[in-house]
Amino acid sequence: MDILDLLRSLAIIIIFAKFFGLLARKCKAPQVAGEIIAGLMIGPSLLNLVQDSDVISALAEIGVIILMFNAGLGTDLRQLMKTGVKATIIATVGVFVPLILGTVLYMCFYGFAAVGSQEFYKALFIGTIMTATSVSITVQALRELGKLKGLIGTTIVSAAIIDDVIGILVLTFVIGLSSNPSSSTSSDEGIVTEAISSTGVSDILGVAMSVVLFFIFAVGVGIITYKIFEKVDQRYRHTRRIPIAGLALCFAMSYIAERVFGVADITGAYVAGVILCSIDDSDYIARKMDINSYMLFGPIFFCSIGLQTNIKEMNLGILWFSIAFVLIALLGKIIGCGLSAKLLGFTGEDSIKIGIGMMTRGEVALIVAQKGLQVGMLSPEYFTSVILLIIVSSILTPIALKLLYERHGEADYTDFKHPVKPDVLLQAKAAGK
Amino acid sequence: MDILDLLRSLAIIIIFAKFFGLLARKCKAPQVAGEIIAGLMIGPSLLNLVQDSDVISALAEIGVIILMFNAGLGTDLRQLMKTGVKATIIATVGVFVPLILGTVLYMCFYGFAAVGSQEFYKALFIGTIMTATSVSITVQALRELGKLKGLIGTTIVSAAIIDDVIGILVLTFVIGLSSNPSSSTSSDEGIVTEAISSTGVSDILGVAMSVVLFFIFAVGVGIITYKIFEKVDQRYRHTRRIPIAGLALCFAMSYIAERVFGVADITGAYVAGVILCSIDDSDYIARKMDINSYMLFGPIFFCSIGLQTNIKEMNLGILWFSIAFVLIALLGKIIGCGLSAKLLGFTGEDSIKIGIGMMTRGEVALIVAQKGLQVGMLSPEYFTSVILLIIVSSILTPIALKLLYERHGEADYTDFKHPVKPDVLLQAKAAGK
Repeated sequence: MDILDLLRSLAIIIIFAKFFGLLARKCKAPQVAGEIIAGLMIGPSLLNLVQDSDVISALAEIGVIILMFNAGLGTDLRQLMKTGVKATIIATVGVFVPLILGTVLYMCFYGFAAVGSQEFYKALFIGTIMTATSVSITVQALRELGKLKGLIGTTIVSAAIIDDVIGILVLTFVIGLSSNPSSSTSSDEGIVTEAISSTGVSDILGVAMSVVLFFIFAVGVGIITYKIFEKVDQRYRHTRRIPIAGLALCFAMSYIAERVFGVADITGAYVAGVILCSIDDSDYIARKMDINSYMLFGPIFFCSIGLQTNIKEMNLGILWFSIAFVLIALLGKIIGCGLSAKLLGFTGEDSIKIGIGMMTRGEVALIVAQKGLQVGMLSPEYFTSVILLIIVSSILTPIALKLLYERHGEADYTDFKHPVKPDVLLQAKAAGK
Repeated sequence: MDILDLLRSLAIIIIFAKFFGLLARKCKAPQVAGEIIAGLMIGPSLLNLVQDSDVISALAEIGVIILMFNAGLGTDLRQLMKTGVKATIIATVGVFVPLILGTVLYMCFYGFAAVGSQEFYKALFIGTIMTATSVSITVQALRELGKLKGLIGTTIVSAAIIDDVIGILVLTFVIGLSSNPSSSTSSDEGIVTEAISSTGVSDILGVAMSVVLFFIFAVGVGIITYKIFEKVDQRYRHTRRIPIAGLALCFAMSYIAERVFGVADITGAYVAGVILCSIDDSDYIARKMDINSYMLFGPIFFCSIGLQTNIKEMNLGILWFSIAFVLIALLGKIIGCGLSAKLLGFTGEDSIKIGIGMMTRGEVALIVAQKGLQVGMLSPEYFTSVILLIIVSSILTPIALKLLYERHGEADYTDFKHPVKPDVLLQAKAAGK
C-alpha cells in the first residue's frame, strides 16, 4: 500500500510546486523559490500533507543528478577553460572565508576553545558546513534568466564545482584531524581513497590523490566516451538511444565518482554532462533531460528541501544561533567570492552577482552535516540551522540574481585578461535562451 | 549510501534494457521482450548485478502508471464506445474460461476436492490468478506496430480494462467466500468498499457497488476536469503546465481509484488518460509523457519483471506444474477471448489476435498472487509459476502479434455491426503511427 501514499504525495507535490512556481513568477520571483515554499507548505511545518520518505528522497536525489548533468551539458568548454584559473581562485577564497568566520561564530556563542581541543573541532565543523556551495539552485535561476552560458554563469558553475572538491577536502581534513586517522571515516570515502589511506599515506594527502585520480579517470573516460558518442551521433542523429545512453553515462559517472573516488556523485553527473557537451546532439539530450526534470524530478527535489524542515521545532536559543549562522554563511561567500572576483578584474556589479550566486547551500551542506552527526562532531539541533541556511539562500539567491541582472545586465568581457575570439562569445550569446 | 546503489542499478538497467531492446528489434521482436530479457540477465537468475529494491519497485510502479495514462491518452473515445459492448462480452468470457480451467488444473495435479473445502478454494485461487489480463505489454507492442488506435487495439485495451474490474470482483468474491466476510480482506479494499461492507451488504455486492460508484465519480470528475483543461489549453497551448497538470491528475486518479474505491490504481491512471484524450493538446501531453517513459520509467518497469524472478530456485515438481499453469493460462484467454470475438463477428485472424493480445499477464496477476499469500490461500512456491506466466506471455504476445499483423494486417470493419462514419475511421488511421 506504500505505493498509494507515494502516488498521493507525487500528485500533491506536482500540483503545489507548479502552482507556487507560477505564483512566484507572477511576483517576478523565480519559480524555484516558489517550489521550495510549496515544499514548506505541504511539509511538517504547515499543512503536513506529505511526509518525506525514502522513495521521495531517492527521486529528489535523481532530480539533483539530472540537474547537474544538464548543467554539465550546457557548459561551453572553451568558456570553462577561460574561467578555470579565476574560478579556482574564487572558489578557494570562497571556501576559507566562511570556514574561518563560521568557526569564530561558534566560539563567540559558546566560548573560545584551545586549538586542538574537542570544542575547537566542533567550532571548526560549523565552519566546514558553510564551505560547499550548492550550485543546483543557482543553475536553475541562471537558466531561467538565460544567463547560464554567460561568463558569470560559467564562472559561478565552475567555481561551485571546484568548491565542492575543496569542500570535501576540508571535510576530510577536519574529520581526519579530530579523530583517529583512517578509522571512523574510511567507510564512506570511496575505494581509491581507502586504498591510498591503508598504505599509510595521511588522510588529507590520500583524499587529494584520489580527487586527482578521479579527474585523470574522467579525462580518460571522457575522451573515449566522447569519440563513441560522436560516431553514434553521426549515424543515429536525433534517435532515442543518444539521450538514453547519455543518462546511463550520467548515472554511471555519479556512481563511480562517489563509490570509487570518494568525490560527490553530483560532481560525477556534472562531469558526465561536460563530456557530452561538445557532441552535436548535446542540445537534443539536454532538451529530453529537461522534460524529465521539469515534469517530475525537479519539483520533487525543490519541494523535498521544504519537506525536510519543521519550523515548529525551533527554540529561541537555537533560533538566534541559526540567524547568525545564516547571516555569516551568506556574507562569508559574498565577501570571499565577491572580493576575489573584483580583484580578478570583474566589475563591481558582476562581482556581487558571483558572490550571491555562490552563496546557495544545498544537499552538500546537508550531507556534510549528516556526516558530522555520524562522527559525533555536530549535535542534532544544528541541523535546523543548516536547513534554514539552505532555504534562505535558496530563496534569496534567485530573487537577488534576478534583480541584479535586471538592473545591470552583464558587462562585456571581450577584452578580458584571457581573450577569446569574438565569434566564440557571439556563439555563446546565441546559444543562451 | 543507498543512493549510490540506486544510481549503479539505474545505469545498469538503462544500458542493458536499451541494448537488449535494440537487439530484439534487430531480431524482428519487439523492444519490450528485449527489456524483460535484460531484466532476467541482470537479475538473480543470471548475473545478479541488480537487486530489486523498494525504490526500484516504486519507479517501476510509476512506470506502469505512466504507461496506462498514455494508453488512456491515446484512446479514441468514439472507437471505445463502438467496442464497449463487444469488449465487455470478450472480457467476461475471457475471465471465466481461465478461471474454470485453472481450478481444474490444480485439482488434476493435487486431487479433486469438494466444493467449499479449503483445498477447493486453493484450486479456485489458482484460477483467479489467471483472470486478469495485463494490458501494458500488449499496449506497448501494439504501439510499436502502430495498431493501438485500430479497432482491434481498442477492443483489446477496453476488454483488458473491463477484465481488470471483473478480475478484482472475482478476487473479492473468492476471498470473501473462503474466509470470514469483511474481516481479513477489508484493509485493502478502499474506503467506499469498506463503508458499504460495514452496512451489512455482502462483500460481492459491496465491491460491485464501489466499482459502479468509481465510474460515476470518474464521469463526474472527468466532465469538470475536461472543461477546465480545455479552457486552460486554449489560453496556454503547448505550455509546460498542461502536461504537468495532466500528470498530477493521473497520479491523483490512480490514488483515489485504489484508496477510496478499491479499484486498481492502473485503472485510475487509464481513466485519467481517457478524460484528457479529447483535449486539443492530448498529443502534446502524450509526447511529453512518452519521453519520461522511454528514458527511465519504461525500462525500469520491464526490467523489474525479470528482476523479480530467480529461475535457479525452481524444482522439478513445481516446474511441471508451472509449465501446465502457463499453457492453461495462455490457452484459456485465447479460447475464451478468441472464441467470443469470432462469435461477435470478427474474422478468424483478428479473433486470434484479440485472444493473443488478451493473454498477457503482469502486475495485476502478481498483486492477486501477493494477496493470496497474504490471506494464506497460496503457497509461496506458486509465485514462480506466476512470474513464469508473466515472462512467457510478455515475450510471446508481442512476437505473436507482430507475426500475425505482418501476415494478415487488420480486416476492414467499416460495415461492422455498429457502423461509424468513414471519416472517423480515416482519422483514426491517420493518427496511428
